[in-house]
Amino acid sequence: MRVELLTVGDELLLGDTINGNAAWMGQRLADHGIEVTRSVVVADDLDVIVAAVGEALGRADAVITTGGLGPTYDDVTRDALAKAAGVKLILDPGLEKRLRDRVAAANRPLAPMALRMAEVPEGAGLLGNSAGSAPGLRVELPGGVAYALPGVPFEMRTIMDEVVLPELAEREGVPQVARKTLRTAAVWESVIATRLAEVEAMDGIKVAYLPDPAEVKIRLTAVGPDSVRLLAGAEERTRELLGSMIYGAEDDTLDRVVHRLLAERGQTVAAAESLTGGLIGAELTAMPGSSATYLGGEITYATEVKHQLLGVPAELLREHGAVHPDVAAAMAVGVRDRLGASYGLAVTGVAGPEPQDGRPVGTVFLAVAGPGSLLSVTGPRLPVPGAGREIRAVIRRMTVVHALDLLRREILGLDVERVTREAQEDREEKS
Amino acid sequence: MRVELLTVGDELLLGDTINGNAAWMGQRLADHGIEVTRSVVVADDLDVIVAAVGEALGRADAVITTGGLGPTYDDVTRDALAKAAGVKLILDPGLEKRLRDRVAAANRPLAPMALRMAEVPEGAGLLGNSAGSAPGLRVELPGGVAYALPGVPFEMRTIMDEVVLPELAEREGVPQVARKTLRTAAVWESVIATRLAEVEAMDGIKVAYLPDPAEVKIRLTAVGPDSVRLLAGAEERTRELLGSMIYGAEDDTLDRVVHRLLAERGQTVAAAESLTGGLIGAELTAMPGSSATYLGGEITYATEVKHQLLGVPAELLREHGAVHPDVAAAMAVGVRDRLGASYGLAVTGVAGPEPQDGRPVGTVFLAVAGPGSLLSVTGPRLPVPGAGREIRAVIRRMTVVHALDLLRREILGLDVERVTREAQEDREEKS
Repeated sequence: MRVELLTVGDELLLGDTINGNAAWMGQRLADHGIEVTRSVVVADDLDVIVAAVGEALGRADAVITTGGLGPTYDDVTRDALAKAAGVKLILDPGLEKRLRDRVAAANRPLAPMALRMAEVPEGAGLLGNSAGSAPGLRVELPGGVAYALPGVPFEMRTIMDEVVLPELAEREGVPQVARKTLRTAAVWESVIATRLAEVEAMDGIKVAYLPDPAEVKIRLTAVGPDSVRLLAGAEERTRELLGSMIYGAEDDTLDRVVHRLLAERGQTVAAAESLTGGLIGAELTAMPGSSATYLGGEITYATEVKHQLLGVPAELLREHGAVHPDVAAAMAVGVRDRLGASYGLAVTGVAGPEPQDGRPVGTVFLAVAGPGSLLSVTGPRLPVPGAGREIRAVIRRMTVVHALDLLRREILGLDVERVTREAQEDREEKS
Repeated sequence: MRVELLTVGDELLLGDTINGNAAWMGQRLADHGIEVTRSVVVADDLDVIVAAVGEALGRADAVITTGGLGPTYDDVTRDALAKAAGVKLILDPGLEKRLRDRVAAANRPLAPMALRMAEVPEGAGLLGNSAGSAPGLRVELPGGVAYALPGVPFEMRTIMDEVVLPELAEREGVPQVARKTLRTAAVWESVIATRLAEVEAMDGIKVAYLPDPAEVKIRLTAVGPDSVRLLAGAEERTRELLGSMIYGAEDDTLDRVVHRLLAERGQTVAAAESLTGGLIGAELTAMPGSSATYLGGEITYATEVKHQLLGVPAELLREHGAVHPDVAAAMAVGVRDRLGASYGLAVTGVAGPEPQDGRPVGTVFLAVAGPGSLLSVTGPRLPVPGAGREIRAVIRRMTVVHALDLLRREILGLDVERVTREAQEDREEKS
């Protein structure tokens, strides 16, 4: 089954909105073994949408539109689908009643425009929307099926998960494609690829590497009637070859893994941040309930604040500046003790774009203090990717990932040095 | 002039990458008065790309492709453009020499694949790329001009700004469209729209509201030969009507504005964060050189840490919990004094998704302590947008924006209460 996506909205062409809906839908469809063969964005223009739906169904079996289902006069997707099907828009009594009840309950008059949201192309299927007010639509056209979903992300996602994906999966039959994503952090893509040569050579298996700053997702894909069994074998071998480099699978994130490891042990962490300016804290508080294992932190951004708040010796700072392994170590011990946490995590470094205290951009020292003792200090260079205007954001993000992975390894008692050495060798080989 | 965008890459259809390139290009082209009429994503497939380029130039005057210019065998955009033009790929001697020199300097052998990056369609123009290795290409086709740019964002952006935009602007002639974006924070869209009714009614002027969590960008567009003069009039009136609600224009961001105001006064800020977990610090350190005006902060996430690190009275925390205006005030004074900053900024609240200490999601107290005295405490409710899975991230982001805007107003000595009252009235009207 081939599916095309059609996103409707001037704001996307103008770049005011990034097309996150299309990416989300592409992922979800791929997870269900359904191939997205094209993704198109067009303006809020009736005839353009009608033409684009026709073109899509000339190439693919189904088209999923998002956007243009709201109440205002530039929302014309439902008109376009009616025109494509050669039918009229009719007022759906059930939708109209729901709309009137809702407005009455809020003690407000019904705007005439709002009734547009109760109109549907004659014969269209209504797709329940437990998350919002606009239902999705299913319209059978000569070339295939068209689904129309709202552009509001959480409404679109709800209808996709509750209705569209199950229906398409049923049309598709038994999936011929199986996929699994494994996640690594703080290891170079080339190190991983070298280790996985044997998996890449397996029959019926495709290996893709999806790099983010300091993270690499490994996507294993198996194709064919035996895909599920093939995939299981490839995953097992990948896990054997990479061992503790893999921190999780599918939607796992490093912060969730760290929280889980701490919670299992009844332990806590506090972080002292310099170049990341709070990003480690932000990451460790992204998840609800994180205060059980993350107590808080100190953002010691200006150099003298490292002494004031964390007791980093003033002499050390005077002599070596803020970017030094002993500073990272003192920060880790300081934040652990001041907050009374099991672990203290600390980072200090040069985010750029300019060097600092004679140290180049990308120089970063990380330290972890554990219950009772300083556990590790690593550095000094992140594998900085080229230059460019985004260098500062990339280095800050890489530092967060390296720091959380170092903490994960220390909690698990893994050999930290080994990985650092590998990264070093790899760096030398590349340079 | 009508332009279409064609993004090439399996990873976009699979949703592994979000199409940020298309959004960036759409914005930049719109800023130059050039209309993007369609944006298409296709797979790394030679014939599909050839067909898509032809379709695009059947509708528009120019097509800009991104992606598929790398050295591997799935990079086929240059082959597709050669096929579309009916010419061969030839090895460009200049590009080949640059490639060989670079590899020799690194003391490495030349991979045979790498030479593909020195091939160009016969007769194509090479677009210099000061940011990276792959040049862009300009190919004149029967239906119009095709530009091919690398998919790496900072390389694409460099070639767009240095070559493509100036060339297209020259083909376009005198711009008929003029645009200006003004930025507001912590004020509701409906409050702004009500005030701007007069501007919306101006001849030849379009007003668009682009909301982000707690921010609204106002985009004024003037069309026609007199667009520049019309726009200036609309901007002047908008600034009169909104006054200090406008914190900046175009690419200004709240953190940059706050840094600039502090630097002009020789002042500094420190922040105490609870529900934001470090996001305010991260925002205030995003810009290089920010340590001149942002000293650091305390992330007092767990309740007892607010007492330990900032001296918030334990009795206050016992009696009222962590989400209370007096707690915010004590945090602001505490962080100002402990870091020796001119201003202390503090936030405490409920990010959700569950209520805390009996207080509903979205309850947030903000406080600013200034040189010598506590300046303001506001709260308790952010205008929370519905529910949904993303509620926690949205409330954290809104809190950052409200906090930075409160600080901006206090530095400028603006009447903080007035805006809070307006937001309150608006909220009551909406509820």
